[in-house]
Formats: sequence, structure tokens, C-alpha cells
Amino acid sequence: MRKQPHGEYQGYRTPGIRLMEPLLPGVSAFTDDTDPSALYPYHLFDKAHLVMLAEEDLIPRQDAAAMLKALREMEAQGVGEVRQQVGGTMHSGEQYLIRLLGEEVGGRMHLGRSSGDLRAVWRRCRERDCLIDMMGEMNGLRAALLEVAEKNLDAVMPGYTHSQHAQPTTLGHQFLAWVCVLERCFQRADVAYRRVNESPAGAAIMTGSDFPLNRHRTAELMGFDGVLRNTYDAILNEDVALDTFHAVALVHLSLSRWASDINFWFTSEAGYIDVPDRFCGTSSIMMQKKNPDSLEYVRGAVAESMGGLMTAFAVQKAASGDPTMDLRYMDRALFNSFEMAIRHLRWFTELLPEMEVKRERMREMAGAHWAQATDVAGALVREKGLPWRTAHQIVGILVRYSSERNIRPQEVTPALLDEAAVEYMGEPVGLGDEALRRALDPVEFVNRRTLYGGPSPEECLRRLPEYRAQLEQDEALVEEKSKRLSQAADKLERAIDALVD
Amino acid sequence: MRKQPHGEYQGYRTPGIRLMEPLLPGVSAFTDDTDPSALYPYHLFDKAHLVMLAEEDLIPRQDAAAMLKALREMEAQGVGEVRQQVGGTMHSGEQYLIRLLGEEVGGRMHLGRSSGDLRAVWRRCRERDCLIDMMGEMNGLRAALLEVAEKNLDAVMPGYTHSQHAQPTTLGHQFLAWVCVLERCFQRADVAYRRVNESPAGAAIMTGSDFPLNRHRTAELMGFDGVLRNTYDAILNEDVALDTFHAVALVHLSLSRWASDINFWFTSEAGYIDVPDRFCGTSSIMMQKKNPDSLEYVRGAVAESMGGLMTAFAVQKAASGDPTMDLRYMDRALFNSFEMAIRHLRWFTELLPEMEVKRERMREMAGAHWAQATDVAGALVREKGLPWRTAHQIVGILVRYSSERNIRPQEVTPALLDEAAVEYMGEPVGLGDEALRRALDPVEFVNRRTLYGGPSPEECLRRLPEYRAQLEQDEALVEEKSKRLSQAADKLERAIDALVD
Amino acid sequence: MRKQPHGEYQGYRTPGIRLMEPLLPGVSAFTDDTDPSALYPYHLFDKAHLVMLAEEDLIPRQDAAAMLKALREMEAQGVGEVRQQVGGTMHSGEQYLIRLLGEEVGGRMHLGRSSGDLRAVWRRCRERDCLIDMMGEMNGLRAALLEVAEKNLDAVMPGYTHSQHAQPTTLGHQFLAWVCVLERCFQRADVAYRRVNESPAGAAIMTGSDFPLNRHRTAELMGFDGVLRNTYDAILNEDVALDTFHAVALVHLSLSRWASDINFWFTSEAGYIDVPDRFCGTSSIMMQKKNPDSLEYVRGAVAESMGGLMTAFAVQKAASGDPTMDLRYMDRALFNSFEMAIRHLRWFTELLPEMEVKRERMREMAGAHWAQATDVAGALVREKGLPWRTAHQIVGILVRYSSERNIRPQEVTPALLDEAAVEYMGEPVGLGDEALRRALDPVEFVNRRTLYGGPSPEECLRRLPEYRAQLEQDEALVEEKSKRLSQAADKLERAIDALVD
Amino acid sequence: MRKQPHGEYQGYRTPGIRLMEPLLPGVSAFTDDTDPSALYPYHLFDKAHLVMLAEEDLIPRQDAAAMLKALREMEAQGVGEVRQQVGGTMHSGEQYLIRLLGEEVGGRMHLGRSSGDLRAVWRRCRERDCLIDMMGEMNGLRAALLEVAEKNLDAVMPGYTHSQHAQPTTLGHQFLAWVCVLERCFQRADVAYRRVNESPAGAAIMTGSDFPLNRHRTAELMGFDGVLRNTYDAILNEDVALDTFHAVALVHLSLSRWASDINFWFTSEAGYIDVPDRFCGTSSIMMQKKNPDSLEYVRGAVAESMGGLMTAFAVQKAASGDPTMDLRYMDRALFNSFEMAIRHLRWFTELLPEMEVKRERMREMAGAHWAQATDVAGALVREKGLPWRTAHQIVGILVRYSSERNIRPQEVTPALLDEAAVEYMGEPVGLGDEALRRALDPVEFVNRRTLYGGPSPEECLRRLPEYRAQLEQDEALVEEKSKRLSQAADKLERAIDALVD
Repeated sequence: MRKQPHGEYQGYRTPGIRLMEPLLPGVSAFTDDTDPSALYPYHLFDKAHLVMLAEEDLIPRQDAAAMLKALREMEAQGVGEVRQQVGGTMHSGEQYLIRLLGEEVGGRMHLGRSSGDLRAVWRRCRERDCLIDMMGEMNGLRAALLEVAEKNLDAVMPGYTHSQHAQPTTLGHQFLAWVCVLERCFQRADVAYRRVNESPAGAAIMTGSDFPLNRHRTAELMGFDGVLRNTYDAILNEDVALDTFHAVALVHLSLSRWASDINFWFTSEAGYIDVPDRFCGTSSIMMQKKNPDSLEYVRGAVAESMGGLMTAFAVQKAASGDPTMDLRYMDRALFNSFEMAIRHLRWFTELLPEMEVKRERMREMAGAHWAQATDVAGALVREKGLPWRTAHQIVGILVRYSSERNIRPQEVTPALLDEAAVEYMGEPVGLGDEALRRALDPVEFVNRRTLYGGPSPEECLRRLPEYRAQLEQDEALVEEKSKRLSQAADKLERAIDALVD
Repeated sequence: MRKQPHGEYQGYRTPGIRLMEPLLPGVSAFTDDTDPSALYPYHLFDKAHLVMLAEEDLIPRQDAAAMLKALREMEAQGVGEVRQQVGGTMHSGEQYLIRLLGEEVGGRMHLGRSSGDLRAVWRRCRERDCLIDMMGEMNGLRAALLEVAEKNLDAVMPGYTHSQHAQPTTLGHQFLAWVCVLERCFQRADVAYRRVNESPAGAAIMTGSDFPLNRHRTAELMGFDGVLRNTYDAILNEDVALDTFHAVALVHLSLSRWASDINFWFTSEAGYIDVPDRFCGTSSIMMQKKNPDSLEYVRGAVAESMGGLMTAFAVQKAASGDPTMDLRYMDRALFNSFEMAIRHLRWFTELLPEMEVKRERMREMAGAHWAQATDVAGALVREKGLPWRTAHQIVGILVRYSSERNIRPQEVTPALLDEAAVEYMGEPVGLGDEALRRALDPVEFVNRRTLYGGPSPEECLRRLPEYRAQLEQDEALVEEKSKRLSQAADKLERAIDALVD
Repeated sequence: MRKQPHGEYQGYRTPGIRLMEPLLPGVSAFTDDTDPSALYPYHLFDKAHLVMLAEEDLIPRQDAAAMLKALREMEAQGVGEVRQQVGGTMHSGEQYLIRLLGEEVGGRMHLGRSSGDLRAVWRRCRERDCLIDMMGEMNGLRAALLEVAEKNLDAVMPGYTHSQHAQPTTLGHQFLAWVCVLERCFQRADVAYRRVNESPAGAAIMTGSDFPLNRHRTAELMGFDGVLRNTYDAILNEDVALDTFHAVALVHLSLSRWASDINFWFTSEAGYIDVPDRFCGTSSIMMQKKNPDSLEYVRGAVAESMGGLMTAFAVQKAASGDPTMDLRYMDRALFNSFEMAIRHLRWFTELLPEMEVKRERMREMAGAHWAQATDVAGALVREKGLPWRTAHQIVGILVRYSSERNIRPQEVTPALLDEAAVEYMGEPVGLGDEALRRALDPVEFVNRRTLYGGPSPEECLRRLPEYRAQLEQDEALVEEKSKRLSQAADKLERAIDALVD
Repeated sequence: MRKQPHGEYQGYRTPGIRLMEPLLPGVSAFTDDTDPSALYPYHLFDKAHLVMLAEEDLIPRQDAAAMLKALREMEAQGVGEVRQQVGGTMHSGEQYLIRLLGEEVGGRMHLGRSSGDLRAVWRRCRERDCLIDMMGEMNGLRAALLEVAEKNLDAVMPGYTHSQHAQPTTLGHQFLAWVCVLERCFQRADVAYRRVNESPAGAAIMTGSDFPLNRHRTAELMGFDGVLRNTYDAILNEDVALDTFHAVALVHLSLSRWASDINFWFTSEAGYIDVPDRFCGTSSIMMQKKNPDSLEYVRGAVAESMGGLMTAFAVQKAASGDPTMDLRYMDRALFNSFEMAIRHLRWFTELLPEMEVKRERMREMAGAHWAQATDVAGALVREKGLPWRTAHQIVGILVRYSSERNIRPQEVTPALLDEAAVEYMGEPVGLGDEALRRALDPVEFVNRRTLYGGPSPEECLRRLPEYRAQLEQDEALVEEKSKRLSQAADKLERAIDALVD
């Protein structure tokens, strides 16, 4: 039963070695079902590992050179395609080299390595690429938001709590609050990136190797910023993938909430905005329909992402050495979630500047349902020296009168206020008509709020440079990460040059 | 800006009608991204709806005949492919007919219908098909289990609670418990099927139509067993999809638990079974490895399914008319979960009869760690009249002695038991050696348990016919459902015949 | 180190028997932390088990009589309180009897039983009690809904999809759709009840007993409708608890969706309803506020319940014999979810009849944003013989004109419709003014929808008796279950009488 | 209908002001159901807010002094108790002051504040306290782990992947991997702390106030490290609470995995360790039982925590101004999860140093099932110059022979290895007996792995100081946080002194 390794070689799982049957097709299909574009991290690791093995004299230099040349040929033909042709698994690099150069040469590549660190390197490389893309998109959205926020600092509208009108605010102030969320989303991704970008390479399958692998060199050549300090930890712990997932899920949650906001503004009832037609569907039966399809996809995606997060937790809930193949369910949930997040950040960046804001309708509603009531009480405190609670209760009675008697806020008189005061404390309060008018004006309401972080245009303009400075800093961070990765790629190619020449 | 409906017609969303821009490509890609095999339910509804419209004289008979003939031509060419060519959406039937027959004829098909009931019919048809497949696979697994259970009614092994040896039982008895779970899984799927197989057709987008659609006729022609009683409910409530999802998720949970059981039996530590090579992977670095890859996929899939269930809940958590496009996240989670469940049921059905059971090792372990202790106390109750609790405490002390002094259960003597009794109650208990031996024998332990539902082979054999009868009944149920569907398909074709002739 | 079982006895875990240290206080606190009201199922099982043991002559009759009398004394003093005094665990019955009657008598009670079946009986008894309560409350809500539905069959309002106006419908029709959901919720609970109400008693810890326990008798005395057929299944499988949880979670989901509906109707923007003050909070700063606090609690509770469902799944994701203490996390999530569901069903039953419906505002909105557009196209089909799609596109253009030119639906003229027709097909369509008016009337829109299940008052009235009949049937089902339980309780007391006399 | 504010005052929700009915008891019970110990953050905010109001001359100094004195009296009597007596809500401070000092004075306290920032301050204060506690406990566990790791650097045992023996490693190396996880857990908590400890105070209900509140002063007096830059963001975004929850959930996940590891080591099959009796339960029927109850609680708690995380996500999935009362479900899940995490960290810290490690059994198993096979291939590479893949395949065949022929690893001969080599490549490989023996020794296996991060005692000792240094740094971080909080508390008291004197 002689094997013919250079002929019909089928990798380390060739039947007749340790096991006698080929893997059940349904099982291998799932294991190998790898999108060609996702094979690149294996390729990167193949190259860096070979360079390190050669530099440390763990394999013959001429063998390393032959293999590295072959891998460059593969690149010329297209990494994804060539690897797909030889099985498409994480071991397709070795497969390719053995087919091309024989086991005598190609069989030397995998020394000191395991599926364990191959997969761990793959996951971290894909995570860091996705994180960089997502961070870039987040910054794009922040830039768009800062622009639309500045344009809408005087777009007065009702703020909401409990789904009810709370107090007047502005669309611009609300957009700045979205920027605050994105700043934190960025930090989350940045922290996740720093955790992710540490190298498990050389940890093999948790104990490393009896060969003196230079883990720092391999890490450097792949653009990792550090080396994981414990080989067991490097392979068997995947809490870091959950940090990444958390960062993505919170992007979805935030976008989902904003999509819900916009969807509400876009209802016939609110009528605050219009959305460009290309973001909307219509109906095969209700021809009047303009449905915010894109926003619904954004809103719903958090459901998929939080479900995926559960998947990731549940897969890991087991003894340290148990979940191995199971992690693939986590992987597909995670990278799908990234794809959706990046797509939706782009949609938002395109949508926001083109959304039509109906300022008049907003301002009208800001004063129509007593959102401004707080400041009537404030006026009583300031001008009449009433304790806050007393003022609050009197205006509470006033609002009830207005509701019982169908009086709109703008129609309220000092006399009615006095009637309420008499009911509450037995005497009128005597606020003048002009003071009452000023208190009832929703635009004035907003303008008065100049305290730190408040919605007045004045204060928002004071804060704007801080938001901008933070964005610039974060844009620089993304650029720096990209630069570091491309420098590492250069270093790797130069190291290969030195070996193949 | 004259439209040319018979020329470049692009469906009801043609720009220039209600909306002026084509849908953003990213949005339409997601909406239309429908697997060809999933398009059949739309086709079925197209045909049934047309027949009903014609029979009720809501559209001209000759137009209906022309359209039905065209749909038969489509079938000759392949429904999935043709529909993909005209956009692949739920409205691809109408698209095709208008392209072929002009809007004057093809434009009559959609009367009284909406994307709402199209999608609802689609979801229910796919659910019922998946449920039938899954029920069939479950029955297959039950049949396999009953066979291996019967073969292993005397395969004595330790039962486990708290991950510790509890009491001796048999592999056969445990397999019968798995059958119990599958019986309930079947019932769940059957109840879900009955809920699913009610027709939303004709409910359009929640109010039905001002045309007198015959909802019962359309339902009958599509094989539905009933018609939903409220058109709002038929379209806007999707609690039934959650019942279906629950039924699938519990299949995954059960398979996951059993995969975990088998995985433990397959550890080097337990050594109870061997698994055929084709279900296992090996390692690129650890050549000794025989890893139960397939079982890990089975074990992990519940994580994906429970995450998907969360997605489905979260998507629906909103006002009644809110989640529309969002439901697509639920749909892809649900049908993916079905696919995995069916795959894993098949793997199990293939695996179980070929698993090698190491009976000797099992039996040895059943007696090696005091799993049988309970019956020593039982002997003291029966033969010495001790209260249960007294007997329990004495044997508890005995086990402690055995642990402290490194005495194995088989080596325990009546004297040691007496020493324990003296410690507990001041006097020996005097159980004879033979009685002690019998009490300590794990095989006897099992054989003594002849009570209703107990693990003794005698009792298991008494119960087996009941399990078998239930299976036969459930197999008949699946067959009946399939038959009813194919009868409906016949009825539909005969009704079409009557119209096209 | 002589034990003094009748003195300082501390149950089977008394230090010095099998283990030498008392359980860590933090651990035992969690295990024993049982709400007194939750102790009753243990008590029930204690009594039924004792009766069975005596009837089967497995313990001396006079000992059984003494113990049963003691348990009746305990009842006189209050079961929860007395059991709390002796530790409050599931074994507090035995503790109490041993303290009162000595181990010689009280020590006989636990024969053939285990914490395993004690806990399984406890869980199923609590589930069935909660299910019955919840089913009763559901029926109460259905009765309330049917009443308010009937009153609002002509309360025309816009239906919504994609958060946008879809078509006119009525509040009554929508309430009837809620009844449909509750009918399914009831069925779910009923199916769950039937699964739950099978007895695990006598399965001990998965193998039953070598003593010939009469499992059917114990089951009968506790009101179970059947006996689980496999002792392993009876103890180690908890898929049935997930069915129960699913049934509760879907009650929460449904209530949450309706609370979201009502919350939207209650916004200042919609203004469709008013909610009685006692269901609302106000604000310490915004005195105008009337916040629907109660509805927010209802809306949010599904989040807790779906999280709990994940907990239950995750706890069970493990080998069969692994999760034991872990199940307590499932238990507290489940019974908390029941409590919330019952509370919220009650709130809804109280709220709905008192909600003020603002019919005029509803009807106005039903016609103000083109919800009725579908029927203009319908009129073109019916009166002018146009194909549906052609009519649909023409009206689509009409709606766009009305939006571009700020024309309200009521102001649209036949001439404008003709302009749209000309744009679409090159010729006018010539619909008369009266026909156009009728088509545009949202009340007529609803009245025309007389098809099966449609929203017209006429059709709703036709269906109402069916909803009522179903409710009566379901009320009878609840009553029957309660009756069966109280008959079993009687039977148990009579059996005790026979033994203690 | 004159109110009597100084008499039966019931807060801002007194019926007869804005609303006419008292809140439904079931609703208010849930809202106010606040654990006395959880009331302190409200108290802190009351004091700091009053100081700021007085310092900024927004209320009369003598009124502020009277109120601050009254709050000190409250402290003398017990903050939790006194506040419970006046309703126990977040507004109990104001209630108390008005009852004591009348609305004329006490009614001035709430100026510029809202339930919104009260609750936001409360949540962040509780989060930071819990985070500090949890970080302290984590450090305690790390200290314990470093100690037991050092003691077990030579405790050779099998490492596991796919639940199967992978390669020999040591218990110490594995414990160091746990430390790595805890280092990341600490960082997570620290990052969360920094996000949490920014002040929302003064943001009121999203727009701040028209009174010139000094938000920085209030923040400083409460020990916040910064002030949130946008008042909308400060109140309506709760993504930061999800970061906190994530940090807690990952503590649970990690502990759960380790509890599963220990549970497996504690099985009769593995037999690697013993656990002190006080962490274990026994059984009421199986007196041999020593069940790791405490570890099961630890293992299961992640299920509760991940469910809670879902709750928190689901509650927030809504428009920005929607979820208000709903957040209470998030709060109770979050703080319950904290409580469990702190409890379980303590249990682990106590358990680990007392766990008995059975080194002989571990070492025996490390060599008994071919875990060391990798190094036989390594020897062939090193000593015979074979390519890795060739060596791997030959040893794969060797392992298969050993399994087919029942030869144990220790019994394998150079001849058998040659037989495998001949099968694979047609010629023997000629590895000497001594080299084979060395390759097969699991202790040598571990000792050879001196590469960076590897399991050899030598390398572990090299790394130990780095783990220790990190721990010291993290201990200092916790101390510093505590110090900063107590300095802020001092500053607050001094500021009060200055006002009340």
C-alpha cells in the first residue's frame, strides 16, 4: 500500500495514513467552503513563515527560495483562484507547493506550524482588515454628520422621551450626539484592533514547537504590532473575537436607532423629512407608497448582529479545548456582520446630506404640544422667586387646563397662569405677558440653553472644533494603521527578495 | 416622458412612475438576492391566483388561459432559471408575462394581490416543505435509534449527573430517552406545520381586496389546509414563524447535547466508543489525532440556531406595521437553520449504527467509582429494615472510608460496612457478603430496575413496541401530508387544464 | 465521631458523613434561596409519595400514617413558613419529619426518591400552575378585546406597513387580529401544558428504583395526566421547559408589539387615542408630560424574556449529564417571565376598555395621505377595463403629481387623473367624478372589503361568533384543567384519610 | 381643590396637578422597587447639585445650607432607611427635604435637574462602583493564579483540542494562559470605567437647562473624571452600559470555561484533581456523590449574563427617544450579572490554591495516548533531515499501527517506525532507540518548548516577572481610582462645610 506523495497527494489527511476513509463530503464541504477572497491571510502567513524558517536556518535556504518563488508565481496567477484549484483549504499553500515542487521541497513548509495558528492568524488578519475598513467608513459618516449638523444647528424640533414630546432641541444638536456615539464606536474598534493585532503565529497548536521558531520575526513580517505572550492563550482563547464582535454589534445598534429616528421623522404623522427616492421602495399594490426600504435594512441588521453575538458566546461556552470546528459558526456570523455594518455606514453617509429637512414643520411641532413648558416654570423661578417645585406644579396645572379646555400653548394668557397659581397656592403669580410669550417660544427655549454641551447654536458652535479635532485625530489613526501594514508588506517582500536572489 | 410599458418595462418600480430614481443597487441586491430554488412558491401562487381570478370571472378567461399557458412554457424551460432572467424577484412571474404577452394581458395577473401575501405565501410554503423534510429525517433517525437501542439494552454503563457518575444504566435505555426527545421534536414540528399550513393568500397587504377574491379556492389549489380568518393577522403577524424556528432550534439543541455525549464517550479518558474515520479529521501537526469534526459541527449548530432565534425575536419587536424588509434577516436565519438541522439529522442517522461500542470498558467503569452505591443502602432497607435515610448515611460513610483508604468498591467487605454503621448508629448492621456482592454488581443494579420506564432490559423490551407504534404513526403522518400536497398539485393542474383547453 | 441524627440532624449533607466540610455559605444560599410560595410542589410530592409507599407496602403503614398526620399539622401552621424554618430546601419535608418523629420514622419518607425527581416535579407543577394562570388571563384579555373590537368596527384608521400609511382599515379589525394572535398564544400554552403535565415522579435520578414504586399512582395523586415513559428522559431532558418558555416569550412579544402600536397612537403626532392617567407617569421637570410608563414596561418585557430564553438554551447546551445546578438560572428566568406576562395581560385587560379612541382624527388621517389610492386603480379596472398594472401605474403618476403640486387626495380631479393616464399610455382614462369620489372615500374603502376575513364591518360581524365560540371553548379548557387538578387534590386527601384513620 | 404641598405632599406626581389619578400600584411598585443600598448615588447627586446651585447663586445660600444640614441629618439616621420611608424613589431626597423644610425651601433643590440625569448619574455611579469591585476581585484571582501557576510549572498533563489529547503541556502554563485572559478582562473593565466615569449631570432631560448650571463643578464633586460633551448624548445614549455589560459577560464566559475545565479534570475519567468538600454537594439518594455544585453555578452564570446582554440590546433597539422605563430591564440584568461575577471571582480565588493536583495521573495520561507524537516527527526532521510532511505521514502510520495492534506509545520500537517509513516511502528511516525514547517522553516534550511563550518551565519562569509587573500596575490602577473617588468625596464634604457654617 505504498503512498505516492508526489502524485495523487491529498494533504495530511490522505486516506491510508492515520485514517482509512476520506472525510464525509458534507463535512469537508463545510470546512473548506472558503470564499477565495478570504484565503489571503493564509498566503501571507505562508510567506512570512517561510522567510523566518530560512532566516533561522530551520530549513535549507535553497528550498525556501524555491518555495517563495513558487508563491510569487501563484500571485501572478491569482492567489484565490490557484488555491481554490488545489482544494481551497487553509493548507492550499502547502498543497500547491508539494504539487509543484514535490514533497521533498514543498513538504518542508509547514515545519513548526499547525492548523491552530493558521486559523488564528487568518481570523486576526481578517478582523484587522475589516476593522480598518469599518473605522474608515465611520470617519466618513462622522464627516458627513458634522456637515449636516452645522447646517441644522437652528433647525428647532421637539426632542422625545417616552415617545412623547420632551423639550425643544435642534436637529443639529441631535446629529452631534450621533457623532458622540460614533466617537465611542471608533474607540471601541480601535481598542479591538490593538487586541486583535497581536500575533499568535508560532504558537502552533498551543505549545509552540521544539524548533526554535522566531515568533517576533514572523509577527513583524505580517504587520502584527506584538506577539502573544503565551502559546496556549494564543490558540485556545477567543475572547478577543468577542470584543471585535461587540464593536461591530454596537455600530449596528447605533445605526438601527438612528434609522428608527429617521423612519419616524419620515412618517406621514411627523412629516419632518423627505428621503431621496433611490433609498425607497414602492408597492405592487399601493402605488402611493414610498417605503424607506434601505432604512429598514439598517434598522433590522442589529437583530442579526446581536443574534450572531449570542452564537459567538454560545459556541465558546465550553471547556477550553472543546470548541474547535464549532468556531466556524462564530466566524461566519462575525464577518457577515462586518459586511453589513460597512454597507450600512456607506448608505448613511450617502443618505444624510441628501435628506430634505422640513424645518417649518419641525419648528411648528416644537411649540404645539407644550414641549416648552419647562421654561414657563423657569420664568416663575427667575422672575418671581418661586421655588422650582412650586413653579413646576403651577405650570402642571396650567397644562392640564389647556388640555381640558382645548387651549393651545400659544393662546395661553397670564390670567390662566394665575388661575393655576391660585389653585395651587391660593394666590396669583403675576407673570407678565411678554415674559410668558418669551418663555413659550421654542426657538428662544433652545437659544437660552448655552450651558456646556447644550443645544443652543452658540454653544454647539463653541464645541464644533472639538468634534472636528477628534475626527482628524481618528482619521490619522486609521491612516497610520494602514501605513504600518503596508510597510510590513514591503519588509516582507524585501526579505523574500533577499532569499530568492 | 411617455413610458413604454411593453418595451423596457421594469415592473411596478419603473422610475418615472411614483418614484424618479432607480433603487440603490446595494438595496435592490439584498432584496432580490433569492436563491433560484426558493422561487417556486411564488410560481405556485401565480398559478393558483390566476386560476381563481379566471374561475371567479375577475379577469377575462382567454387572458388567463394565455398566461397559464405561458407559465407552463416557463416550467418547460425551468422556473428558477427563467425567473432569474427577468430579475429574480417575487414579481418575476408578472415580469415574465408582461414581457411575453404585453401589459394588456400580463398586467392582469396581479389583481387583488400584493407583495404582502406573496411573501407570506412564500414563507409558509418554504416552511412547510422544510418541516416535512425535517420530520422525515427525524423519523429516519428514530428508526436508527430504535435499532441501536435494542442492540444495546444490556450495554451497562455509568449514568451521569453533575458530570459525575450517578448510577449504572444502559446505552440502550439512554438511546430510548433520545427517542422520547425526538417524539416531542416531531410533535413540535407537526404542530408548527398545522399552524404554518393556513393560507394568507388573498389578504393582500392586510385588508384583502375590494374584488371578491375566493380565498378558499386559492388556498385549496396551493394545498393549504385552511384559510387565515383575518386579513390583517394573515400579513402582519409572524409569531407562527417563531413556532417553526423554535421547533428547528430544539432539534439543534437535542442533537448538540447528544453530540456532546458522544464526544465525551469518545475521549481518551472515557474510551467508550469509536467513530468511523470518515466522520473525523486529523491534524496537520499532530498525526495521532482523530478529531470528531462532524460531531463538533453538530454540537455548535445550536449556537447558530439560538442566535437566529434571537434575530427573529428582535426583528419582530416593534409596532405591528414597522418590520417589513427587516423580516428578511429572520428568513435567512430560519432557512439556514433548517438546512443545518436536516444535514445533521442525516449525519446522525448514518453515524449511530456504525459507532463501535466498547461494552467491556463501559461495564468496568459502571462499577469502578461507586455508581452502584445506592443499592447497598437499598439492601440495608430491604434486608435489615433500616430507614432509608439511616441506610443512606451509613453507606455514605462507607464510601468515604473507601476513598480515604483507597479501597475499590469490589474490595469492600461486610466488616467495613459494619464499621461505618457503628460510626453512624453505634451498632453493626450485619449485611451478608453475598447480599453485599449482589448489591455492588452494576449489571444486577440495572436488572433490578424493572419499574415503569426503568432501564432493565426486561422493562425496555416491554416498552419498545410503544416507541415503534408511535414511530409508525408519525411516519404515516408525514406520508399523509406529502400526499395531500401532491393531490392539491394535481387539482391545480386539472383546473389549469380546464382553463387552457 | 458519633452522629446524633435525632438531635442536630442537618439532612443528607450533614458534615462527617460523605463530606467533611459544610457547604460554602455562598453556594448553599443560592441553592436554597427559595421563595416560600414556591415550596408547595415539594409538599404535594411528599404527600403523594408517602401515600404510594404505604399503599404498596414499601414502608410500614403506621409510619406512613404518622408522617402524613405530621404533614397535616404542618399545613395547619403554614407550609411555606414551617419549611423555611427547617432550611427551606426541597428536602425540608424530610427534615421536618425527622426532627418531629425521629429518623426511625421520618427517615423512611425519601425511599426511592431523589433530588432529581423532586426538582423535576417541582418545575412541572410550577409550570402548570403558571400556565393555567396565564391562560386564564389571556382569555380575560380576549374577552375584553372582543368587546372593544365590536365597538370599533367602524373606527376607520390608516393601516401601516414600513411605518407608512398602507390602506384604510378599522381599529376593530386590528383588535380582531390581536385576538387571532391570542388564540395561538392560548394553543401554545395548552400544548405546553399537556407536555408539562406528565409525571417524572419515581424516576429518581434517571434510573428509577429497585423498589417497585407505583409511578402511575403517584402521578394520579398529584394530578398529572400521564407518566413519562422513560426514567432517563424524565430527569435529564428539559426541552419541555423550553416549550413553556417559548409560550411565555411569545405572549411578551405580542404584548410588546401592541404596546408599541398604542404608544404610537398615543404620540402627539398620531393623536389617535388617550390613555387613562393611572397608566401614565409625568416628569419632575417637564410638567406637561403624560408618559405611558405602563406600556413601556409591557413593551420592554419581551427583551427580558427573550434574554431569559437564551439563558435557558445556553444552560442546556452541554452533555446530557452536565447541567444540573446550572438549571437554576433557567428556572429563575422562566418564572420571572411568567410573573411579568401575567401582570401585563392584566394591565392590558384593564387598559383597553378605558382607552379613549379619537375616531375623527383616525378617519381624517385615513384619507389624508393616499392610503386609499389602491381603490382608484381598482375603479379603473372595474369601470374602464384596464389591466391592473396599467391602472396601478397611472394612479402612481397621479400620486406623484399630487405630491409635487401639493394637491390633497380630496382635491384630485378626473382631469388630473387623465393627465396621468396620458403620460402613461398616451390617452385619458375618463373616470367620472362620482366614481373618483367614491374610490377616494376611506370609509367606503373599508366597507367594500367584504371578502373572507376582510375589514368591512359586515364581514367582521360575520366572523365575530367564531371568535366568541373559540373563546368559550378555551375558557372551558382552562376550567376543566383546574377541575382535574382539584379532583386530584381531593383524591389525595381521601387517600391520606384512608391511611391516617 | 386647593393642594396642600407642605402636608400630604406626594412629589411631582401628586394627583390633581397634571394627572388626576394616582399611578397604578403595579406600575409604581416596579418603578420604585429599589434596593436601599442602591439609593446612595441619588444622595450623592443631591448633595453635589445643591452645593453647585448655591455656589453659582442659583438658589439662596441659606436655603442651600438648611437643605445640606438636613441631608447630613439623614446620613446620621441612615440614608437608605430614611429614603425608603419617604417612598424610596430617585426623588426621595426632595421628598424628604420638602417634608422637613417645606416646599418653600426643599422645593428649590431640583432646579435644573430631571429624572433623566438622576437616573443617568445613578447608573454610572453604580457601574463604576461595581467595576472597581470587580477589578479588585480580578486582581485577587490573578495573584492566586500566579502562585498556583508557579507551583505547577512542571505539572505535565495533556493539552486538549477537539476534546482529544493534543500535546503535553503543564498545568502552570495553562494557568498563565488564564492570567492572560484576566489581563484582558481587566483592560476591558478599565476602558469601560473610563467611559462610564464621565458626568451626565446637568444634562437634565437632554437639553440641560436655561439656568447656568456649572456642570464641571457638579462632576468634580461626584468624582467624575470628565463631563459629557453633549447633553442629548448624555441622557439618551446608553451604548456605554453595553460596554460595561460586555466586560462583565466576558468575565462570566472566562470563568465558565475554566469551571468546565476543572469539572472535566474532576471527572472519574480524568481524575486529575480533587476539590475541597465545601465547594461540593452530595446527593439525597447517591451517597457516593461529590458534586461540584459551586463550579456548576460558575459555569452556568454566563448563560444568565449573555441572556441579560441580549435583553440590554433588545431594550435599546428602538428610536432614540423611545426606551425609557424599558431600561430598567437592562439595569436589573446588568447589576445582577455584576453580583454574580464578583461572587464567582471570589469562589475561584478561594478554590484554586486548595485544589489538590494529582500530578502522577496527569503525567501518565500525557504520554498514554500519543499526545507526544509530534516530537517523533520532529526528531525525524532534525536527525534524519526528512521534510516535515514526510516525517508527519510516517508517524501517522506508526500511530495507526499502534492503534490497530494495541501497542502503547512507550512500547513502540525503532523497527515499527521503520515499518511505517517503508510503507510511506519505501525505505526505513533508522531513528535510534534512544532518540525515539527521548522523543516519546512527555516531560522532555514540554522541556524542549523554550520558544517565546512556550510551556517549558524555563520559558515560563522567564515570563513570570512580566505577568507580575502587569498585575502590580493594575493593582495600582484600582487603588488610584479608589483614591480619586475618596478625594472627591472629601472635596464635597469640605464644600458643604463651607456652606453650612
